[in-house]
Amino acid sequence: MDKLELIRGISRASATKIVLLVIDGLGGLPDFRTGKTELETAHIPNLDALAAKSICGLSEPISSGITPGSAPGHLALFGYDPVDCIIGRGVLEALGIDLDLKPGDIAARGNFCTIDKDRLITNRRAGRIATEKSSELCRLLDGMVIDGVEALVRPVKEHRLVIVFRGDNLSNDISDSDPQQTGIAPVDVTALSQQANHTADIVNQFIARASEALAGHYPANMVLLRGFSQKPQLPTMTEIYKLKPAAIASYPMYRGLAKIIGMDVLNTGTTIEDELATLKQNYAGYEFFFIHIKETDSAGEDGNFNLKVAALEHADRVLPELTALGPDVIVVTGDHSTPALLKGHSWHPVPVLLYSQWCRPDGVCRLSESACILGGLGRLPATDIMPLAMANALKLNKFGA
Amino acid sequence: MDKLELIRGISRASATKIVLLVIDGLGGLPDFRTGKTELETAHIPNLDALAAKSICGLSEPISSGITPGSAPGHLALFGYDPVDCIIGRGVLEALGIDLDLKPGDIAARGNFCTIDKDRLITNRRAGRIATEKSSELCRLLDGMVIDGVEALVRPVKEHRLVIVFRGDNLSNDISDSDPQQTGIAPVDVTALSQQANHTADIVNQFIARASEALAGHYPANMVLLRGFSQKPQLPTMTEIYKLKPAAIASYPMYRGLAKIIGMDVLNTGTTIEDELATLKQNYAGYEFFFIHIKETDSAGEDGNFNLKVAALEHADRVLPELTALGPDVIVVTGDHSTPALLKGHSWHPVPVLLYSQWCRPDGVCRLSESACILGGLGRLPATDIMPLAMANALKLNKFGA
Repeated sequence: MDKLELIRGISRASATKIVLLVIDGLGGLPDFRTGKTELETAHIPNLDALAAKSICGLSEPISSGITPGSAPGHLALFGYDPVDCIIGRGVLEALGIDLDLKPGDIAARGNFCTIDKDRLITNRRAGRIATEKSSELCRLLDGMVIDGVEALVRPVKEHRLVIVFRGDNLSNDISDSDPQQTGIAPVDVTALSQQANHTADIVNQFIARASEALAGHYPANMVLLRGFSQKPQLPTMTEIYKLKPAAIASYPMYRGLAKIIGMDVLNTGTTIEDELATLKQNYAGYEFFFIHIKETDSAGEDGNFNLKVAALEHADRVLPELTALGPDVIVVTGDHSTPALLKGHSWHPVPVLLYSQWCRPDGVCRLSESACILGGLGRLPATDIMPLAMANALKLNKFGA
Repeated sequence: MDKLELIRGISRASATKIVLLVIDGLGGLPDFRTGKTELETAHIPNLDALAAKSICGLSEPISSGITPGSAPGHLALFGYDPVDCIIGRGVLEALGIDLDLKPGDIAARGNFCTIDKDRLITNRRAGRIATEKSSELCRLLDGMVIDGVEALVRPVKEHRLVIVFRGDNLSNDISDSDPQQTGIAPVDVTALSQQANHTADIVNQFIARASEALAGHYPANMVLLRGFSQKPQLPTMTEIYKLKPAAIASYPMYRGLAKIIGMDVLNTGTTIEDELATLKQNYAGYEFFFIHIKETDSAGEDGNFNLKVAALEHADRVLPELTALGPDVIVVTGDHSTPALLKGHSWHPVPVLLYSQWCRPDGVCRLSESACILGGLGRLPATDIMPLAMANALKLNKFGA
């Protein structure tokens, strides 16, 4: 029996509340000059004080050495096996802009791009055109109907767009048109299995017509499509954990992911303060909150050590507003590490603290990579965090007689 | 999806280099008088200095409480599930003497032994006869053909030999003739399944004819056979990790094992210094090196605590030659523990250090059993070591979007 089924069998509804604060890309690496990581450099008295009352450890999102993308990193935190539950890029993008997918819909991630007179790609992002321009171009393509299949085309941000093909007998088993490099032409979409021939044909027709429609719109004179996918059928968090879950996230992809597993996605603003205000306003209505802080990951991805330190300190400053609400369980962790030194996600395990009045605190009183090595949770799979949060919220029955 | 398949899906070729130094039987137990293990007694300043720059931990070769043989201990270090990938003794012996096995070949490990006039075994190793004598006797038996099946007979070292049965429709599903004790007669080989009847019959005929041929050659007047096996079909390291791997080992079995998973086995001498010289000469040609040091295990098996300490100090003295080459990743560990006090392999987890510029060092600055308890790798499955080495060499792509 997998872990999720085990938990589903013993979970029980109760009024206790769990708050999972995901500080994206939380873990880091030491600066070569100081020997200290971003977390060890930051002044985070509130997180440290909470760590002292918590049980701590290091979370392994997928398994040793594996660098997770954002989707598997988060799915693991919600308790879902991130290797079994693959969610396609197109689906994530679509859900992230509140585009509800119906069963059978095929979603793709698109880029407006630039091609030259020989049809070779010169810029995969059309020079990162403004979202306003992208929105205008999407309207040119939206609503196209090919052999009874409708194409919904929506802007995301800058050069990014989502294309959803809606019709009968579509398959996501087709290859990308985006070669993910410049200097070559966009590639024809090909069927990867027999039953996908029809879909590949329709998508290629769409691309041809899009190319005509965009011809005069240099630098955004072509589209590249990738990550064709259908919404997976995952059990919802409510089915598994018997609680009402809410997501508070300002970035599209995280909202989309939360929606797939049945969370209510709450309207919120773009700052951490906005997110905390949303938490306060909705605190009575849910038993589980996922709050997502993006700034730490963005700073890490940019290789900006000091900005990541500042983002951690920002998160620390708002923490008292969260703790003041008195959740029964508070978990603070990340979906993966994003060391500024590596300018990207990494495989390093992620500090985690779990607070509840029943958590059996360890001796750790700093939320940091080195302090958490000695934590009572040890190095644990990220998928163990939800079961632990549920247990600490007294939401799990005994297993067996 | 199993771990190896996961890694195969995200590994990428790159020029970075990984050196895995296996100090066989590395872990030990404290001497009752001093309270210190072999590693804690040894003066190993170079290994300690490397540990200080590394992330450390304790490697569990199979699982808690399980004492590994050399083959599963090494397979786990190379990332292969040691419980799934069983390699028979005969196959290991054959490959260790560069005897290439064909598909369908059945290999067995043999001992020349002494039997008395009642055919009872008096010495299982024929008094450890010299390799020269053994070679001469092997020539008496080599090339025998029984019902169209050829027997290849080759000396290994002292009383040890390899017998390969080559022909059609052979099965390895037969029992040993070696009872692994004295005072009783060699036992008939029996078929363990229907389709092995033919093979059992041929092997018994071989033993009968060998017995006649050896009758006048006391003390080596009989052979004992065990570990009938066929070469397993494992994915190669190159297929999984997309690198060119080399093995530097002076003992046959380790070379044979490396060959099974597609490593180039480099010619080397019998000392650690020879092995390091081989590493230097071939450093440019490979991205992965497995270097095997046997002396530590031999000393442990002999119950010689001080000799094992000396072997560890010997390994420490050559370490600077390895580090001077500047590998991107260095792993130092063992395939299992061999405490001198137990005079054999043991189940105790094995100290491991992993150095790279991205390793996120912990506070451990001693390569020892007690120091590694507090390491950042915690207690980890040995099969996690290769994924971590690959990650630290930046040879793994991100998993998922």
